[in-house]
Amino acid sequence: MAYNNNNTYSGRPKRTPRVPAQQKPKLKVIPLGGLHEIGKNITAFEYEDEIMIIDCGVAFPEDDMPGIDLVIPDFSYLVENKDKILGVVLTHGHEDHIGSLPYFFREINVPVYGTRLTIGLVETKLREHGLLESVERVNVNAGDTITLGKNFKVEFIRSTHSIADSVALALTTPAGVVVHSGDFKVDYTPIQGEMIDLQRLAELGKKGVLLFMCESTNVELKGYTMSERNVGGIFKQIFEDSKDQRIMVATFSSNIDRIQQIINCAMEHKRKVCVVGRSMSNVVKTAIELGYLKMDEDTMIDVTEINRYEDNRLVIITTGSQGETMSALSRVASGDHKQIEIKPGDKVIISASPIPGNEKNVYRVINELFKKGADVIYDGLMDVHVSGHARQEEIKLLHALLKPKYVMPVHGEYKMLKQHQQLVMEMGMPKENVFVMANGDVLEINRQGGKILPQAVQSGQVFVDGLGVGDVGNIVLRDRKHLSQDGLMIVVVAMEKYSGNILSGPDIISRGFVYVRESEELMVEAREVVREALFDISDRNLSDWSYIKTMIKDTLRDFLWKKTKRSPMILPIITEINM
Amino acid sequence: MAYNNNNTYSGRPKRTPRVPAQQKPKLKVIPLGGLHEIGKNITAFEYEDEIMIIDCGVAFPEDDMPGIDLVIPDFSYLVENKDKILGVVLTHGHEDHIGSLPYFFREINVPVYGTRLTIGLVETKLREHGLLESVERVNVNAGDTITLGKNFKVEFIRSTHSIADSVALALTTPAGVVVHSGDFKVDYTPIQGEMIDLQRLAELGKKGVLLFMCESTNVELKGYTMSERNVGGIFKQIFEDSKDQRIMVATFSSNIDRIQQIINCAMEHKRKVCVVGRSMSNVVKTAIELGYLKMDEDTMIDVTEINRYEDNRLVIITTGSQGETMSALSRVASGDHKQIEIKPGDKVIISASPIPGNEKNVYRVINELFKKGADVIYDGLMDVHVSGHARQEEIKLLHALLKPKYVMPVHGEYKMLKQHQQLVMEMGMPKENVFVMANGDVLEINRQGGKILPQAVQSGQVFVDGLGVGDVGNIVLRDRKHLSQDGLMIVVVAMEKYSGNILSGPDIISRGFVYVRESEELMVEAREVVREALFDISDRNLSDWSYIKTMIKDTLRDFLWKKTKRSPMILPIITEINM
Repeated sequence: MAYNNNNTYSGRPKRTPRVPAQQKPKLKVIPLGGLHEIGKNITAFEYEDEIMIIDCGVAFPEDDMPGIDLVIPDFSYLVENKDKILGVVLTHGHEDHIGSLPYFFREINVPVYGTRLTIGLVETKLREHGLLESVERVNVNAGDTITLGKNFKVEFIRSTHSIADSVALALTTPAGVVVHSGDFKVDYTPIQGEMIDLQRLAELGKKGVLLFMCESTNVELKGYTMSERNVGGIFKQIFEDSKDQRIMVATFSSNIDRIQQIINCAMEHKRKVCVVGRSMSNVVKTAIELGYLKMDEDTMIDVTEINRYEDNRLVIITTGSQGETMSALSRVASGDHKQIEIKPGDKVIISASPIPGNEKNVYRVINELFKKGADVIYDGLMDVHVSGHARQEEIKLLHALLKPKYVMPVHGEYKMLKQHQQLVMEMGMPKENVFVMANGDVLEINRQGGKILPQAVQSGQVFVDGLGVGDVGNIVLRDRKHLSQDGLMIVVVAMEKYSGNILSGPDIISRGFVYVRESEELMVEAREVVREALFDISDRNLSDWSYIKTMIKDTLRDFLWKKTKRSPMILPIITEINM
Repeated sequence: MAYNNNNTYSGRPKRTPRVPAQQKPKLKVIPLGGLHEIGKNITAFEYEDEIMIIDCGVAFPEDDMPGIDLVIPDFSYLVENKDKILGVVLTHGHEDHIGSLPYFFREINVPVYGTRLTIGLVETKLREHGLLESVERVNVNAGDTITLGKNFKVEFIRSTHSIADSVALALTTPAGVVVHSGDFKVDYTPIQGEMIDLQRLAELGKKGVLLFMCESTNVELKGYTMSERNVGGIFKQIFEDSKDQRIMVATFSSNIDRIQQIINCAMEHKRKVCVVGRSMSNVVKTAIELGYLKMDEDTMIDVTEINRYEDNRLVIITTGSQGETMSALSRVASGDHKQIEIKPGDKVIISASPIPGNEKNVYRVINELFKKGADVIYDGLMDVHVSGHARQEEIKLLHALLKPKYVMPVHGEYKMLKQHQQLVMEMGMPKENVFVMANGDVLEINRQGGKILPQAVQSGQVFVDGLGVGDVGNIVLRDRKHLSQDGLMIVVVAMEKYSGNILSGPDIISRGFVYVRESEELMVEAREVVREALFDISDRNLSDWSYIKTMIKDTLRDFLWKKTKRSPMILPIITEINM
């Protein structure tokens, strides 16, 4: 099945456009968010004086961002153009697609559009940030089309992913039709709702699609991702095999279909269900209210009630499947949870696979659970998890249905976008019709062609640390990393203001450098080295503080490197006293 | 194939032993090293007044050990018993099995035994530490048996692993025969040398094996690990497909068979080979000297010569397959390498898979290489790597050949040892005959039985940071982590010694906390908060420095938490001045 690159619209004969191509306005497509990933958290579409936005999510901090809580996109370009912005359209309710909205809405007030569950999750978030009153939310259904401004029609197309109510989007613009896949898999047997609307995608393809922006998470993997329903089958088997055991399942709080399947098994075996962990409780509450989770009335119990039920009458559903240190599962595993204690024989199912970077933490939790005598089932031992993202054959299916003129692989690291390019080239797409972008790049496109502009717009990451947004940047992080590598040594000297006489010190204080008690000799020598350097200065009657500081730093750094091959941060503090 | 648990020796009729069982000395087996893994880096065997040791390796620091270079085992127990120690016997030359030797030999001087390549690599290491003259090294061949003291005979059994010249060990002791697998896979078509000596293992099994200590790295994986030769086939294909391109291959420096296969391909295509990276150069030099790497005389060129050859006449072999920041490949990828620059069209093969925890770094390097226009082939796209460790079917094969009375799964995290236990139980082994240990646990065993003693010996990790061994411990690491999370705030006050009058300050200096320029107001307020607290004190005529310090800390901590939800380390520094 090869691409048809002479994609014409509805079979009408081509004719020369009245306005010459180069004068016709083009659509600008600007991926603005993601850490290593490109086109992930937020994308802007600009046509003349109008901008619409798809998604507004967060990234999660990595090892080289100590102390950072969240990473949000740099909104500078959008703030500069805030008068043009018509609204934010959401594909689904995952954090990496909605998590930055509270920060966005502090700067820009426009309506947000999404399906019911997605908007439900957004509302929980806005409520926490005290923004619920000030932001207009619009509920749409899959199949609906909304009009934004003069230039954008947005159609919501039923999709399937690891969260319910997810959609793909078709934007009809004067420059042509753009289809954005959102996050998807092709699940023919979803747990609730209908399957992904392949017919509508084919219909759009038949009419003519200018650009297909397609996610690339699993583009390196051959074959198909299995249906969510497969996991249900495995759960059934485990529940059958564990009739006398207490069962605990850790999974992603947002995977409502997974939770529904666990609840179904629980009800079948007359077990009560207890939900533990703040984010899990939040999502479950929203999902029940909106009718996305269905169960008998007395199924749910509170965590304070669990001791009133026998082991074989109980299922605990919890967060922490990624080994997050403060999560309920981690605390249970390390024996720090107030209400839940692991007993030998408990069955614990980790219904997730570790996201790259989390392996060590997940394994640590599994080891601890085993040591407490639990019987742990994790991905690899049994198929207790399936991905929410399409593999190669599913990605090819969407390309085949849509047959777009141009492709922009998104939602992946650079290496994945390149693999995606390779994949569609094997289907007959010319290389130059596939735009492999960087965040901030601007693709200008219409039916006559597309090109990446030489000048990118400002993009990047803003760090959220505690209440601070953007007050921690690369210099602060560099200091944190330096401090964490070799610690800190403070040299304190009090000097008389005009004479430069030493009134007190030098004293040396260290943190994170060595055990001071066992390195006493080293510290005494270090103090001596600084003292000699200071005497040398006072002999020469120098009283330029910044010179003295540099000298202390250099002397001490050389001494410590020679003695220990380490470079702690050295902070000379000179107190001037006016005698 | 089920275990025969009434394992008797050579078919002789059982008879009552003359000495009652409980009075016969038992063999003690003590796994002493490994981080999450158990029985990995070093194991001690103790019989009456004699101790022998298998392997002496390092672990690599993890995310929560900032600044640490290496992790070595705690040798306390061995140092206390140094007079009993007969020698160290090595299974193979990987860092996690030989890397701690220089630190061990500083404390304990005994001979070290190993096959030629292993001893060759040990000698390079000892030379770097200036210990070559003082340590006795003994070369043995696979098939040899050595005698240690009165109680130990050690047989070296040919094995196959991702480094040449690796062996399994059979210890004959008065308590029975112990077989230690070392690290192994069952490779029927190894690149050099013979295949693993399954016949000898079967023969030992037939005679009777008391205890089998078997590695567990890949025990969670079904099936067989492929032969190293498979990778050679893939390399041939890539070299065929890349006739005009420069080829660069990153792999583990110790995988000499892999390097040999790359060199073979290079010679076939009349390409010169250039080896880059310090550890790679070291190993290749040793391997050539000892005859483990074979090539035409003029195959190797120096990195300074690469510009004299056309792209299609060149192969560069380099370290850095784990994305290590300072490795040759990382520097090439980021454009920081002095001699090698990536050109569009270069073919780069990452012949390794990421060790858990290294994924992000490896992906970063791959992304950077792609961005520079290289064509990168990595594990997952093509089978350019195979593991050196046995999977389930190979592990079962060894159990079936040896049919030991007892099993101790080693060289794995707790979850893997539990899987290993499960695996041999499926083969008919009773659960109580499988000893799942922790490091420091002592197994006391002979033909009459085995048990883990209630009292463990001292074990654990010692951190190496620069030249320091053991001077960084948990408190120092806790400080480093605290500093890296929220940075540091120093409050400097100079006070008159007796009156407690403030002579200067309070001044506030921060590092790794916030951008000071953009948070000026916060810093001014913080200073004001401390100043007020100090006034309050001087009103009350307090001059207990430690009380004042605690007060400054508490006041500032509360203020900062309220304002920012962050907790930097706070260091109050009071300079006493004697006016």
